[in-house]
Parts: sequence; structure tokens; C-alpha cells
Amino acid sequence: MQKRVVHFEDGNQEMKWLLGGKGANLAEMTRAGLPVPPGYTITTEACRQYLDKGELPDGLLDEIISAMQELERKKGQQFGDPSNPLLVSVRSGSVNSMPGMMDTILNLGLNDANVHGLAQITNNERFAYDCYRRLIQMFGNVVCNVESYHFERLLLEQKKAKGVELDQDLTADDLKQLIIEYQDVFERMAKQPFPQDVKEQLRLAVEAVFRSWNNQRAIIYRRINQIPDDQGTAVNIQSMVFGNLGLDSGTGVLFTRNPATGEDHLYGEFLTNAQGEDVVAGIRTPRTISELNDEMPEIYRALHTMAKKLEAHYQDVQDIEFTIEKGQLYMLQTRNAKRTAQAAVKTAVDLVKEGVITREEAIMRLDESHLNQLMHPTIDTTEPLTQIALGLPASPGAASGQVVFDADTAELWASKQNGKVILVRTETTPEDIHGVFATQGILTSRGGMTSHAAVVARGMGKPCVCGCESILVDENQKVMRIGEQEVKEGDWISIDGATGKVYAGKVVVKDATFSSELTELISWADKIRRLKVFANADYPQDAAKARELGAEGIGLCRTEHMFFGADRLPVVQAMILADDQAARDEALKQLLPMQQADFEGIFEAMDGLPVTIRLLDPPLHEFLPHMDELDAEYAELVGAGQELSREAARIRMVMKKVRALQETNPMLGQRGCRLGILFPEIYDMQIKAIFFAVKNSLAKSIKVIPQIMIPLVGHVNELKFFRERIDRIAEQILGEATEQSRYVIGTMIEVPRAALTADQIVPYADFFSFGTNDLTQMTFGYSRDDAEGKFLSHYVEHKLLPNNPFQVLDRDGVGQLIEMAVNKAKTHKPNMKSGVCGEHGGDKESIIYCHQIGLDYVSCSPYRVPLARIAAAQAKILEG
Amino acid sequence: MQKRVVHFEDGNQEMKWLLGGKGANLAEMTRAGLPVPPGYTITTEACRQYLDKGELPDGLLDEIISAMQELERKKGQQFGDPSNPLLVSVRSGSVNSMPGMMDTILNLGLNDANVHGLAQITNNERFAYDCYRRLIQMFGNVVCNVESYHFERLLLEQKKAKGVELDQDLTADDLKQLIIEYQDVFERMAKQPFPQDVKEQLRLAVEAVFRSWNNQRAIIYRRINQIPDDQGTAVNIQSMVFGNLGLDSGTGVLFTRNPATGEDHLYGEFLTNAQGEDVVAGIRTPRTISELNDEMPEIYRALHTMAKKLEAHYQDVQDIEFTIEKGQLYMLQTRNAKRTAQAAVKTAVDLVKEGVITREEAIMRLDESHLNQLMHPTIDTTEPLTQIALGLPASPGAASGQVVFDADTAELWASKQNGKVILVRTETTPEDIHGVFATQGILTSRGGMTSHAAVVARGMGKPCVCGCESILVDENQKVMRIGEQEVKEGDWISIDGATGKVYAGKVVVKDATFSSELTELISWADKIRRLKVFANADYPQDAAKARELGAEGIGLCRTEHMFFGADRLPVVQAMILADDQAARDEALKQLLPMQQADFEGIFEAMDGLPVTIRLLDPPLHEFLPHMDELDAEYAELVGAGQELSREAARIRMVMKKVRALQETNPMLGQRGCRLGILFPEIYDMQIKAIFFAVKNSLAKSIKVIPQIMIPLVGHVNELKFFRERIDRIAEQILGEATEQSRYVIGTMIEVPRAALTADQIVPYADFFSFGTNDLTQMTFGYSRDDAEGKFLSHYVEHKLLPNNPFQVLDRDGVGQLIEMAVNKAKTHKPNMKSGVCGEHGGDKESIIYCHQIGLDYVSCSPYRVPLARIAAAQAKILEG
Repeated sequence: MQKRVVHFEDGNQEMKWLLGGKGANLAEMTRAGLPVPPGYTITTEACRQYLDKGELPDGLLDEIISAMQELERKKGQQFGDPSNPLLVSVRSGSVNSMPGMMDTILNLGLNDANVHGLAQITNNERFAYDCYRRLIQMFGNVVCNVESYHFERLLLEQKKAKGVELDQDLTADDLKQLIIEYQDVFERMAKQPFPQDVKEQLRLAVEAVFRSWNNQRAIIYRRINQIPDDQGTAVNIQSMVFGNLGLDSGTGVLFTRNPATGEDHLYGEFLTNAQGEDVVAGIRTPRTISELNDEMPEIYRALHTMAKKLEAHYQDVQDIEFTIEKGQLYMLQTRNAKRTAQAAVKTAVDLVKEGVITREEAIMRLDESHLNQLMHPTIDTTEPLTQIALGLPASPGAASGQVVFDADTAELWASKQNGKVILVRTETTPEDIHGVFATQGILTSRGGMTSHAAVVARGMGKPCVCGCESILVDENQKVMRIGEQEVKEGDWISIDGATGKVYAGKVVVKDATFSSELTELISWADKIRRLKVFANADYPQDAAKARELGAEGIGLCRTEHMFFGADRLPVVQAMILADDQAARDEALKQLLPMQQADFEGIFEAMDGLPVTIRLLDPPLHEFLPHMDELDAEYAELVGAGQELSREAARIRMVMKKVRALQETNPMLGQRGCRLGILFPEIYDMQIKAIFFAVKNSLAKSIKVIPQIMIPLVGHVNELKFFRERIDRIAEQILGEATEQSRYVIGTMIEVPRAALTADQIVPYADFFSFGTNDLTQMTFGYSRDDAEGKFLSHYVEHKLLPNNPFQVLDRDGVGQLIEMAVNKAKTHKPNMKSGVCGEHGGDKESIIYCHQIGLDYVSCSPYRVPLARIAAAQAKILEG
Repeated sequence: MQKRVVHFEDGNQEMKWLLGGKGANLAEMTRAGLPVPPGYTITTEACRQYLDKGELPDGLLDEIISAMQELERKKGQQFGDPSNPLLVSVRSGSVNSMPGMMDTILNLGLNDANVHGLAQITNNERFAYDCYRRLIQMFGNVVCNVESYHFERLLLEQKKAKGVELDQDLTADDLKQLIIEYQDVFERMAKQPFPQDVKEQLRLAVEAVFRSWNNQRAIIYRRINQIPDDQGTAVNIQSMVFGNLGLDSGTGVLFTRNPATGEDHLYGEFLTNAQGEDVVAGIRTPRTISELNDEMPEIYRALHTMAKKLEAHYQDVQDIEFTIEKGQLYMLQTRNAKRTAQAAVKTAVDLVKEGVITREEAIMRLDESHLNQLMHPTIDTTEPLTQIALGLPASPGAASGQVVFDADTAELWASKQNGKVILVRTETTPEDIHGVFATQGILTSRGGMTSHAAVVARGMGKPCVCGCESILVDENQKVMRIGEQEVKEGDWISIDGATGKVYAGKVVVKDATFSSELTELISWADKIRRLKVFANADYPQDAAKARELGAEGIGLCRTEHMFFGADRLPVVQAMILADDQAARDEALKQLLPMQQADFEGIFEAMDGLPVTIRLLDPPLHEFLPHMDELDAEYAELVGAGQELSREAARIRMVMKKVRALQETNPMLGQRGCRLGILFPEIYDMQIKAIFFAVKNSLAKSIKVIPQIMIPLVGHVNELKFFRERIDRIAEQILGEATEQSRYVIGTMIEVPRAALTADQIVPYADFFSFGTNDLTQMTFGYSRDDAEGKFLSHYVEHKLLPNNPFQVLDRDGVGQLIEMAVNKAKTHKPNMKSGVCGEHGGDKESIIYCHQIGLDYVSCSPYRVPLARIAAAQAKILEG
């Protein structure tokens, strides 16, 4: 059988699953030769046995006692000895950090008999009784569920009675009297006297810590943080040291480097003649660590040496708790220091330069939140904030601005008055696009993470909060209401797109800080990664931005976004509303040069890099006005007696078309290549625009690498149909330059059937691009628009799903389809390229998965390109 | 190289792909020793070579000429001989029957020189010139595209000029003159003279037949009938025989058994001294075949012998064309006879009893259209009919009735006046259910094959025509408009749910005829098949019907349908609209005994057989009124100044709820087990109702086999969640009877992810039921409601898809998922049962596939159970 009790010197960092995080850490520190007060850990396995059985498993108590005897030998003290008692702390320590559920009992081993001995040996009677008082309170609280306030009340009364303000002003005698009252209340509430048998104290404490695994707050914490319920907690028994035994004693906290800036100097604070809780209590003001150099230079030097040693050992900046007991330094805890994004990046790069860690290790330490902080403005949360609502964190970044409720006003205020505005809408539509360009950020009351507002904002790198349902937006009255509160046009608000929070008024926004260290770190990542990183970009300026952020090509250019420009939408609508082929052709003829110009712009921006152009995807009704709007317009005309007017007739005609195009499930309707098959003239126009643009670009010596992509293919015949058409049009337009243009034709794999029949499709495809958004929707049978607002959060919260599959790619289901398709494709065409262009292309875990299954690239929004470059390198590093 | 010209005696039935249907048939008849006029076939391969090359392939003409020489030897005549010319027919003959595109030239080999010879040798000058006249016309038409009317006009003028009425009254001289005019018009229109070289005639005729493969009507025919374009047609060259050479000659058509009833006697008609086209022309009335016995008893005996010989050879009833030339009997064609469903079934059973075919062969001959005819009333199409519209054939059967536009009137007229009504609606909703019960049939102007009306009608075996878009239904004015035509309440119409046709007025409806032979045939099928056949039934009376039609259990009981009863819907709505848990619980408490009673009824009806109950599946908004209706009701109240009334407040509340429940893509939204997870109390009520019903049924000694089925599972955790809940409730209600109840728990596999992760799901499932409707929707990414009206027919018509995947299961995609799931399931639980309960469970091809991949059962609507029993046997037989 595995050992269920492990001395610190017998454990190490690798045994975290058995010893818990804290236990493993104490063991590791001990192993590293640091002065850690000796002790031992009761394993998580012992806890699981206890929880299974409902009582201590056979023999465990003997093992604990035997370990205690070993500890007695090390300390030269006896547990329960009346004259020189060995005191210990008992602390829970789970595998994953669970702050707030950690149960701690200090000073265990004191009783009525040996408290005198402690007083004598420390020559500090007050200290001894204070220790005992604290033990009774903590023991009562942790072991017997006696609420702390019962004890606190007695303490308060005692101080009143004695006319003193602070705990430390109570004398030893005051404390002795208080201990009697503490023991009374203990017995009354716990239905048993405070145990005088120290072994009994120990047994009860260990069991209580075991049981605490299943208390309410622990269960909730685990649910929120997705920690398995069957892990159990370890228990750490450690000999006590005291920082309050005189002026040669003390306690402190230390960072081995500055956690805000990353600069390489000791950072922290300390108090002499104090215990840890005194620092927390805030009664005395701690002093900065540099002052320790003046006061106890030897200790400071020892600390400095240990700091470097610890950094070297843990290969990271450490956050250390230490205690000095009568001139003897003890390390109580060390852990990797929490730090700002800026510090994290600087430290990682510095540690590489110092030779402490490798470039790979530095890269592994960078995470998404760091990059989000460094690449987007953030709100300074140290300033006071008034949160008024919470929505979905749809696009990171933060902004303050004056509220406007329509795109025209947004544009006007932003341009003429050079003002900062936040566009607030129920939801945005393509017709709001000029307003979105003009704003600092967007706030909508409806729509999810894939709503128009969200997608557009992410593309532009602007902050956006979506689906903020507590807000009622009245666009006519130009006011938004949150409960009783009203925010009018022109009022200031602030939004944080990384958290979904909405604040009243202006806030302090900290700029993005794309430091030289970050640039260096990403350049290292580029050398390591195998996956290419492309960007999703629909306009020339986005393409330029993407390239600036390191994109190696455009993986998805959504041509429909080009249709939404103010100058184009009317033409697009005319095309859709056309009664006959001639009228449709006329509209398409107008659209062609516009699309062509867009493509030329993108080709120029991406000179020498591939540009993947997806043909029209959304259902046509997305380009027409909403029925509600039409109803309102029509009612107005009727009200004015203009039912017979030409305008009324026009609206009736549009309404008829909108009705004809309405669908029960538009997600699964007439969109993607289905449109191109029913209306080949639309796709033809797009294909012509591409090749005319290719021709012109070639003439300007631009190196174009056009990749035409067909959306929503579910059957090979669809791709076949377009492949023939594209080749024919290319030949017609390019003639002899066809060869030179090096165009390729690929397909989105976003319908499950396409993945399943990839072997049939692959002969007609030069590349596969997995549209994991739609593939996730169809594989799960989840409409993202509906699921995120309705059941998905419930599913994740109640662990029916491990993650939101729209954020983190579902490996078992969706991933299985992707792997199947890739394998089938590679069987036919070993060198065929494939990648992901859904939102998962910008998610770290998903990028790692893409690497693992052998995809060639990921494509994400421009502002996620740096993250993807890092994640791709991390994937490669993880591979080993 | 394969032979490109094959003499009849060298071919056989198996060579259909090479010789075409007609050529293979002539070969087979020759092989069977029947007196077939000799000839040869030019293969489809030769045609393909011709079409590829655009001219006759090298050497082919030589092969044809050489075959002609062989034919000359057999007939003892020379092709082109001036005194005794060999004449031949030239006919196209494709692999698949393509009636209407068959090009035929008779009497080829005649010219100005040898027409005299023919006159002399037949001693019939008029006959000879008539043959020549016909040749010129047919040759002109088939080879040179000279429209027939040019010739017909000349014939008419000639008859006028001669003062005669009938063609046959023209003399030989008249015909000679006409031939001169025919040749003139031929030369003028064809820009070349009529060829006098008979070999040139032959070459041109063969090329023309080859070319006819790509004429417009052939292309369209192939597209409609899904015949590959690259098949090509064969050409049959056969020596002519003449039935018009005197009273010892004649021609006729013969069925070897009565094609209407299946009775075993010769059936047909003949004419003496006539050619085939004379029968068709209708100038002389043919006589029944029995009269031939009086006139030419030897010929009749020979025919009788040949009929039996042919039946034995082809093992089926034959439809024969014969000609008697100067007392010599020739068989021109034989083919399996078209027959009524009744005759088909009787013949199949009789042939088994006569030892001609096996039971397996008899079963293989029964097809879906036969069963539809025998199980449902049909319209007598021999009577005059006025079709006024065409919709989707949503549920087979035919009915006449008076038009009503609402369910209440339907019920009233049907019950009080015992009238026959047809319910006409824009679309039906659950609230119309009492009207549907009362009607003879349903006609809707909107909705597809899975609309409410269609599903309910199929379940009840009533005719239904859906999505009849040319009809404008005005339910308020109680009128429907089709173009200019108006049909008012009370007017009679008729519908044919098998064809989608709508007729004005009453029509003659023939009753269903479930004959003893059919019963016998199906009982044979039951002995053969391996697949079990279950039924989808939601009410006790449907369950009883299903059992009567041979269902071996209920494979799908949709509990939501029970919610739509007039007495239940208000309670269901109250449950959905409940503001708090208490109100919801109250409504559920009322629903419980209702559901329980339903289940008890079904358990009783299915005593001893399994009943699979699916928990609530559709989104809750389906139970609430449509927004349009609410808008209208509310507007009315506002109009009446009752905006502040209690009713107005209620409507506002309902509107709010309807709005909250609205979804962008309801198909992929909050439905199925997602509802059960968000509102466990609803599923709990249903589970309780099941087990209370089980308990009561057990007490009544009914043998219950309840199978509880969870819909829309996509992740194992969902099933796990319900399995625990169901087991707990069963234990609570049944206690010690739990064991005895033998209940099992299964899941629908209808989300692609469920199929992909079947290995994770199977530990918690006792059975899998593939919901192929939804699985098809999600695997293809097709919303059936949208696809069928919008792009699916285009896809099928243009061969982008081989079939409508909602009718015939898609093996490559959807099937792959099913096979994957079955294989994964069987790896874990080799004996686990699985089946299909989508509409594919009633489709022959899909049933055969279900058998092939090892499913255990199919479940279909009660009226398709007999078809499924047959198809399951066919699947087993096909397996060999």
C-alpha cells in the first residue's frame, strides 16, 4: 500500500496529486535545502479512504502518531509535553488551489496543563495564553462548527470590561480569564469539552479537515472551477514557529522580483515581533523589505540568497512567507508569484537571458489574459467604479464614451466634434457599420458572442459588450433604462469588453502596452511553431492590421461584409429584389467593380501572402430590412393616407420578398453554396471580381496567392459544380496568366456530412478550412444564438458539459469529425493543407488541439494573431 | 474488343446493359425458342463511341453490313433486292425504359426500284406503296427532322382530292402519286433527296437513333427519372413481318393473365389483315383474344402454349405483341405486364402456388405503390376529373368532402349532419386536432412533408395534401382562391394524398382492398424477415390500429401529442406560463393523471409487446398561440378600449412569454432533453405517469414492457442525468415490482455528436433509436421545413443529390454515422438493440439499408407497417 503519511523531506513537487499543492510545495522547499519548519503530510488518498468509509481508515491513526514521534525527535520536543510542548499547525491542502476553503488550526498541542510550560520556555506568559486562546477559537470553528462570533463577542466584552482597545493590550491574566469563558462557550456549543488530550486534538483536527472537502463552499468552489469532486484534500501537520518572541523575531512577505513591473529586486514587507495575522490585521504598518537590510543584515542577506535559490529551483519568481524566530529564519511558504501581464512578460524574457529558463519555458508561461491585457486598453480597477450592468464579454478592450443610440449620430459626433462615443443598440445590423467604425465601443442588449456587433467589433479590435439583457434600449426616445436608472444620449458610460461590465460615467483606461519584451517573446514563438497563423479579415485595412500583428495570410475573407457598405447595400438589395434576370444582372454589374476594388486592396495589403476568399455565405434576407421596420414604415404611410403611393407599393414589394425569404431555421436554410447553386449569377460575379482583381494585381507586380473557398458544402457535387465554374471563369479572364496566378480552390468543412464524406470531396479540393463555429452548431444540434442565452450556461455550470463548445473546441465530437476528415483527405492527398477558421482558431486550447491533429494553420481575428502565434508555439513545445 | 453488333440468338437477358432492354428481350425470346423475326442489335457501347467521336467509330459500318448479310442468309432475301427485298425495322432501345423517346423506322430497305418487287411478291400493290409511303415519312421524321405534319398535310389533301375519308380507301395509284409528293417535300425540307441506296438508309438511320440519345426530350426524361447521361442507346435491326397480307394475317396484343384482376386466362385483342398501327388508329374495333380461338384455332393454341412458356421463362405475367404473317405466328415483343396492385398481389401468390416462383420471389415483386393502392382509397382516374391545384403528396389516400375552413365547423358538420368534410387551412396547429379527427382529409397551403398536418394525417391514415402554394386560403372570409377561381365553405372538392392533386367537385373513390392474397403474402414475409417492425403511435387507438396492421411494438410514442388534446392544452399552457414553481407544479399535477391514463390505454392495447415512450421533445413555444394571433386579439381589445382589462393583461403576459421563448433556430434550440434538464419537473411528471401506469397495468395482469426514451441527447451526461432520475422514480413508485416491470431506458440518436460519441453513451443506454429525421437535418445542415420548399427539389432535379435525403436515408453521410454508432455500441454491448424511428423506417430502400447494417428494428406510422414487413423480408432475401 502507498504511504498515507509522508514527511516533508520524503516528498517533492511531482507528488502534488498525493500531497496537495501546499504539501508538495513544503516538501519541495525542504528538498531544496531551505529552512522549513519540519512536518509531514497526510495524503489525499487517505482523505478519499476516509470519505468513502465515513471514518478514519484502519491503521491511519497509528501512521500519524508514528510520524509525530519522528517530528518529536527532529524538534527535540514532545507533543503534549507539559514543560516544553511541541506545537503544530494543521492545514488542509488540495491538489488545485482552493483559496477560501482552506481550513487552518494553529498552535495545536496546547492544553490547560502545558500552556504554563510554553509560557516558561518562551518566557512570555501573555504569548502562551494568547496562543491557547487562538487555538480554542480555531479548533472550535474548524472542528466543531462553533461560529467565530461566539468567541469574538467574548473578546470584545473582555476588552470593554478592561477598558482597552486592542487585543494586545489584554494582559496574560485577562487572557487566562478569557480562556475559561472560551472553554465554556466551546462546551455549550460543541456539546463536548475542549479536548485536553493532544492526540485527540490531532485526530479530531485531521478528520475535520478531511470532512471540510465536502462543505458547501468547497462544493460550490469546485463546481465553478471545474475541480473533480473525488480528489480529496491532503492535511499538512507542521511544527509551529513564532515571529512574536521578541525583537529578534519577526514575520514578512517577499516577492523575489517586482510583481508589477518585473524589475529584478526584492519586493515585500515585514514586521518585527509579530505573527502573520498581525500584518493582515493592519494594526501596525509593515515596513518595506529593504529596511530589513538595516535592521537584520544577516537575515536580509540570507533572504536574498534564498530568493535567488528559490527562483533557480522553481525557475520562476516566488512569493515567499517567512518567519524569524529568535534570530532563526524559517521559510513558511513559497509559490509562483502572481504578477501583472507586463511583469510576467518581462520576467519570462529576463529569466531566459539569465539562463534560468529556456525560451520554450518562457513561452509556456504566457497566457491569454496577459496578451489581452497587453494588446487592449484595460480599466484601472484601483479607481472607484460604479458598475451598472453585466453583459457578455464579446470583444476585449475598454472604453469610455458618450452614449449614442444610432449610427448616424455616432458618425456625426465622432467626426464633427471629434468626440468619443459608445454606440448603444438593441442589436446592430449591417446598416450600422459606419456607426461602428466611429465608436469607441459597442453595447447591445440582445445577441450573443456571434452577433453582428460582436463579430464586427472583434474584427476591428474594438471593445464590445453584448446581450446585456438588463438594459432596455429605447432607440426612439434615445434613452436606455436599467431598472429605475435612465441613461440618455450624451451621458457618459464605460464598458469593459473583456469582462462584460458596464460602468456609469468615465473611468481611467490604461493603454495597451505592446512591450519590446513581448515582441521578442513572440519572435521566439515564431521560430518554434509549426502551425501557420492566418487572420480573418474582410477589408484592406483589416488585412493590413493583421499583417502588422504577424498574420501569414488571410484565412477567411467574408465577402458578404463588403456588401454592407452604405454605398453597396442599396445595390445588393436591388439585386435581391430584382424581378427578373435582367434587373438582377444589372445590379450585379454594379457590384462587380466594387468587389473587385476590395479584392485589389486586400491583395495589395497581403502582397506575397495567401488570401482566402469565401464566396457569399449568409441567407439573402440578412441584407433586407427587418419586417418590424417595414411594418412601421408602412403603418406610417397608411396613417398619412398614402396607401396608394409609389413608396407604399415599394414597401409592399419588399415585404413580400422578405416574407418569401423568411425561414424557420435560417442557420440550416438557404445559405452558403446553396445560394450559389440557386443563383449562380451571384457567385459568378464574385468569381469574376476576384480574377479581374488578380489580373490587375499581377499587372502591378503584386504577388497574389488567391484561394477561393466555397462555404457550406455538404455533398461533393456542390464543390464539383463550382470548381468547374471557377476554372472556366479564371481561364476566360486570365487566359495565359492563369498559370501565373497560382489560384487554388478549397472548401469550408462546416457541415458534418462534409467531414464524413471528406474522401469523396477531397479530389475536388485544394484545401480544407474547418468552419468550427457551424460545425459545432450542427454536431451538437445547438443554435449558438439560442443556446448561449438559454441552456448552455446551465449546462456548463452543472457540469453537463466541460466547456462552452463554442469557446473551446469539443475534441470528442467535433474534433472527431475534423480528425476523420483530415485523415481521409491525407489518404488521398498527403500534402493537402487544412486549417481552422472558426473562432476556435483564436482559442489557446483549441489551437493546441489543431496542432496535435496535424492541421496546417489556424485563422483568427487580427487582434488574436499574437495569441495564436504563442499558442501554436506552446502546442509544439507540449509535443516535446 | 467487345462485339458491337450482336445477333438476337447470341444475346440474352443479362446483356441488357449492352443490348438495351428491347434488344436483350428480343435475344431472350429468341433463346427461349419463340418465333421472333430474326435480327441483330448494335450495342450501347457502339453508341457511346459514336457520341464520343461525333461519327461512326472505325469498322462499325462493316460490322453492321456483315450482320445484314447473315440476316439475308436467314431470311433468304437480299437487302435492296429489286425483286424480293429484305425489309427491316430500326428501333432505339435503351437500358432503362424511356417511353416517348423511342425512335422507330419501319420498312427500311424499300426504294423506287424495289417497291415493285415487294408489290409482286406480296401480290398487293397497294400494300407495297403504303409501306414505302410510311418509310419516307418515318425516315424523314427520325433521320432528317422533317416534321410529320408536312407529310400528313399532303395525305389529307390527297384524300380530299380523291373524295375519300380513310387512308385505306386510297388506291395504289393514289399512293404512287403521294410518294412523289412525299419525296419532294422530303428533299425540300431535308435539303437532300430521299436516299435510294438502302445501305445509306441503314447508316443514316443508325446514326439518327444514336443521336436521338441527346435530343431535348430524352435529356429531360433522364433527368426526371435519374438515368445516367452516359449510358447511350442500342439500335435494333429486325426483319419486318406483315400482318396485313390478307385474312390469314393479323396482329394483336396479349396479356398472359388478366392485368386488372390477376385471374388466370389469356386477355387481349387482335385484328386480322392489319398492322399494329391500325389497332392504335382505332379505325377498326379489335376483337377479344378468345375470338381468335374460333377464327384461327391453331394459332390460338400456339399462342396459349407460348404464353405459358413465356410465363415460365420470365417467371412473370407477360404483355406480348404478336403478328401473323400468312398463317405464320411471330412474336414481336414480350415484357412483364403492367398490372393493378390487386392483380400484382394475386398473380404473385398464384405463381407461387403454381410452382413457377418461390415465396421469396413473390415478395420481391411487391412494391410500395401496390401497397399504397391496396391500403388506402384511390381515385378512379378513368372517370373525368378537373384538377384545380397540385400540392405535396403528404399522406396517401383519397377523399371527397365539403370544404370547411376551421376545426369547429369540421367537427360540427361531421357529427351533427354526418357529413363528409375536407379541412382546408393555411396550416394546421395542434389546436385543430379535433377538426382533423372529424375530416375525410386535409388540404393546406403552407408547410412541408413534416408539417403538423402531414404528420398527424399520416398517423391517422387520412389523406393529406400540403404546401399547396397556388391556393390562397382566407379563413376569415371562408373562401379559398386559386387564381380567379373561388371555392367557398360547403363546396365539394376532392384530394389525392398519394399524388398531391386537388380536384373540383366529387370524384369516384375506390375503397382499399386488403385481399386475402395480400395477407398471405405478408405472412410469408413475416417468416422470412429478421428486422422487427414497430409502429409510431401516440394514442391508444393508434396503437390498436398498429397492432392490427402487424406492429410488434410501439417504437415511438410522442408524448407531446397527448398534450394537444382540447382538455389538456389549457393545462399545458398554464404549466408553461406559470410564474413560479408552485403554479407550475399545480399544472403538472393536473396533467399527470391524464398522461397516466394515456399510457394505461397504450399498455393495454399493446399487452405483451414493448412500448417505447419518448419524453417531451418540442420547444415549449409550440404549445402557445402564435404571435400573430395574439397581436390580432390584442388589437381587437385595444380597439374596443379595453386596454386595461384583465384579458388584455393576460394577453400581454402570454405575449411576453411567447417572445421569451422565441428562437432564431428552434430546430437547434431549447427542446428535447434540454427541456428536461432545465425543467426537470416536467420530465419527472411524465416519468411518474409512466410508472403509475405500469403499476396499474401490472395490477390488471397486463404484460407491460415499457421503454423510456430520452430525446436529443448529445452528451453522455444528459442521459446519465435522466437514467439516475428514472431509476429513482421507478423505485419510489414500483417498489418491489420494479423487477417485474422490466422497464428499460434508451436514447434517441439524432444529434451527430451522439452518434460520434456512442461509445461514451452506450454504458447508460439499454437501446438506441436513431431519429433519422433530425439526424438528417443536422448531418446535412438542412432545415427540412426550409429545404423542401426552397432548394431541395432543385438539388434533386439537377442531380446534385441522388435523392431527397428525408425520403431515402443517405448512406454515405447519415448512414455512416448510424453504422459508426451501432459498431461502437456493439463493441461495448454486443446484444444491445437499436432501430430507426424516423420517417425512413417506412421507406423501402431505407429499411433494406437498416437490415444490411444490422439494426434490430424499424418503426414507422401504423399504415406503413405492412410495407415495412414486406421491405424487411425483401432486405433479408436480397442478402441471399
